[in-house]
Amino acid sequence: METQLQIKLARRPVGVPGDETWELERSAPRPPEDGEVQVEVLYLSIDPAMRGWLNDVRSYIRPVAIGEVMRAMGIGRVVASRAPGLEEGALVVGTMGWQQLATMKAEHLTPVSEALAPPTTWLGVLGLTGLTAWFGLLDIGRPEPGQTVLVSGAAGAVGSVVGQIARIKGCRAVGIAGGADKRAALLKDFGYDAAIDYKAGNLNEQIRGTCSEGIDVFFDNVGGPILDAALRRINRGARIVICGAISGYNAATPPPGPANYMSLLINRARMEGFVVFDYVDRYPEAIAEMAGWLADGRLTHREHIVEGLESAPEALRMLFAGANQGKMLVKVKV
Amino acid sequence: METQLQIKLARRPVGVPGDETWELERSAPRPPEDGEVQVEVLYLSIDPAMRGWLNDVRSYIRPVAIGEVMRAMGIGRVVASRAPGLEEGALVVGTMGWQQLATMKAEHLTPVSEALAPPTTWLGVLGLTGLTAWFGLLDIGRPEPGQTVLVSGAAGAVGSVVGQIARIKGCRAVGIAGGADKRAALLKDFGYDAAIDYKAGNLNEQIRGTCSEGIDVFFDNVGGPILDAALRRINRGARIVICGAISGYNAATPPPGPANYMSLLINRARMEGFVVFDYVDRYPEAIAEMAGWLADGRLTHREHIVEGLESAPEALRMLFAGANQGKMLVKVKV
Repeated sequence: METQLQIKLARRPVGVPGDETWELERSAPRPPEDGEVQVEVLYLSIDPAMRGWLNDVRSYIRPVAIGEVMRAMGIGRVVASRAPGLEEGALVVGTMGWQQLATMKAEHLTPVSEALAPPTTWLGVLGLTGLTAWFGLLDIGRPEPGQTVLVSGAAGAVGSVVGQIARIKGCRAVGIAGGADKRAALLKDFGYDAAIDYKAGNLNEQIRGTCSEGIDVFFDNVGGPILDAALRRINRGARIVICGAISGYNAATPPPGPANYMSLLINRARMEGFVVFDYVDRYPEAIAEMAGWLADGRLTHREHIVEGLESAPEALRMLFAGANQGKMLVKVKV
Repeated sequence: METQLQIKLARRPVGVPGDETWELERSAPRPPEDGEVQVEVLYLSIDPAMRGWLNDVRSYIRPVAIGEVMRAMGIGRVVASRAPGLEEGALVVGTMGWQQLATMKAEHLTPVSEALAPPTTWLGVLGLTGLTAWFGLLDIGRPEPGQTVLVSGAAGAVGSVVGQIARIKGCRAVGIAGGADKRAALLKDFGYDAAIDYKAGNLNEQIRGTCSEGIDVFFDNVGGPILDAALRRINRGARIVICGAISGYNAATPPPGPANYMSLLINRARMEGFVVFDYVDRYPEAIAEMAGWLADGRLTHREHIVEGLESAPEALRMLFAGANQGKMLVKVKV
């Protein structure tokens, strides 16, 4: 490959990032220097958090700069190496970005096993997606057997794993998603005990009906009216895990906060945020447990794959339209 | 006293409770039965939480019923006893209500020492006010020496104690109150390291200036825009203690929630509510520590006393107007 395609941030979007947000550029890839490798990108992960990286505000990670290749996690194969210990042919994951060839420091890449699981799994259930579900639910939510765990964005990449972990740990899992198809998938594919289609209306009544003993843990990917409705039904000592707020990510001004937050006082409850990167030292523990569940069939996952790097901007928009079920991936090498 | 005055809830208020909320009634007090005592009420405590008791909604305590004597903590003296072990003349605290004579089960009253502290202290710094400050700050906020503790409603009964406990525990205490006089009192009377007058405007800038190393614990009595401004400056791992939200208590519809709550995610922070009644088993521990601080002069407190039971409705309104500094009390026996 003499030239490669890269997608760079052209301007900061207002609202949903349209095509004008991006600049497609073809150029020769930079050859690796000492300590670096060149990786052919196989798949890229498309995640709601990427929207936040486009805003020029203080956050848990610096914003993507104008003119910079869009940040994205990926899995790829080393095609050239000037780093001892990371040979050509190795399968690696890392922050490869929206490009076909990534020239990176070897220390920023993690080799993964081809034998343990299919490559895409390392971006999904055994990657940051699954790790986010595992640490958010178990370390922040701390559910106990028999408790009710409510999950929003439950048909999404993280949410679909959260519900399954909750059930494996002996909890009752209730999922919220948008649309009859997604609601059916929650029950049939992801093993939720009960499911809510928030687009069907009467959200408060649906939560009351499915969480008749109240909510002990609410794992929130969505925010907005769904968070407010959940706050009305939390139990004493409940934990609300703030994983995301996709309903507000494209708002030009911050949407209203949770008006019912005083339910935290009445119910002696807590609302807590987390960032999966803080748990890097404990990733192996979580991966080992989830790989075991994958192997014995207790953990299933669904992928939504679009083809071609050019599709990445549209794939990102699909997340905010709720057009995906399961983990959204771009297959770069088609 | 052949007849006594009682103040009962006549109708549920919308907004600030006006005089039409209450019904003043003179009647003969009920004589005590077996296991009961009659208490002459000396002082009643006036607290922001009382506004919530007037709404017919599920909360941590049942609402006051229409026609019922208004609930209030009080201190009084036993004037007639049919309960062994609680003799005439004993000084007691309990939920006496807005009346001059309370006939109550002895088991619902706690005898207090006249030697240890003046009677009003048992409604303030050694009563639920001080206990709320102590458990909220130390058990929920968990500040560490050297950390910055920001307090809203800092000139109020609870807030003025929180700041002092924070300093005693080696923290830097920053208080927020409304008006230049209150701001001065925070620095002069309550020992805050820095103080903010939110009515002077530029709240974000004032917080940035006084909390230059960020906020580790935010003890919130106020809610609304003050909570949102604090969320902008919290540090990683910060704890937001939800003690109250007086800014919204009289709103006919819930005011907007904290729009900046996603700061909890970015900063891996938590927002948690509590109810002091949950700590009843540990009250002696807190009272012992605070009585020691009172005795050696490290803990000061200010009382705002109005005279006559008839003044109770106005005293409650004064809380919401921010017209008090320190603990609001009604002196019933004048």
